[in-house]
Amino acid sequence: MKTNSDKIVRMAELEIDPAQLEAYLALLTEEIEASVAKEPGVMMLHAVSVKDAPEKVRILEVYANRQAYEAHIQTPHFLKYKTLTAGMVRALNLVDVDPIAFAAK
Amino acid sequence: MKTNSDKIVRMAELEIDPAQLEAYLALLTEEIEASVAKEPGVMMLHAVSVKDAPEKVRILEVYANRQAYEAHIQTPHFLKYKTLTAGMVRALNLVDVDPIAFAAK
Repeated sequence: MKTNSDKIVRMAELEIDPAQLEAYLALLTEEIEASVAKEPGVMMLHAVSVKDAPEKVRILEVYANRQAYEAHIQTPHFLKYKTLTAGMVRALNLVDVDPIAFAAK
Repeated sequence: MKTNSDKIVRMAELEIDPAQLEAYLALLTEEIEASVAKEPGVMMLHAVSVKDAPEKVRILEVYANRQAYEAHIQTPHFLKYKTLTAGMVRALNLVDVDPIAFAAK
């Protein structure tokens, strides 16, 4: 995937309530799949959890541009995720990043 | 990209000497492009730097399996990167992660 200066690239760092982790992961997965499938401007969402601390979630996010991101956070699937996970997320840190190199099969 | 339990997924967290950052980024980019192009078992390498602290680099890495990873770290392009950047990298933390959901255009 090519990246350029219009793109918004971000690393979201979350900490989830361990007691609600399974429910959270299901909601996150649904939101990721819907966003990339339905929104032309959501280029990539890759979510992982730390093996030794699975309540720590990291999401590498790429949006085509600012407009695509603003549209994304108003979609029904994002608002569903945001509402239903509000009581599950203990901490959320959004880190703006610059792409260095993206390569994948 | 599908992920499964054979795959090795990792987040590398690096801190680079700011005075050598430009040279480091060129070497990292070369290594990433060579690895994904030449090695069937290197599935994905996505590298970013923190916008407010560009010496902080994060790389999301996916290898097909343990054997692919072990082969990767013996390749000439990886050894070149590792040798030439040894004096540039102030800290390296390799975090094993589990994939939750990977979606991209």
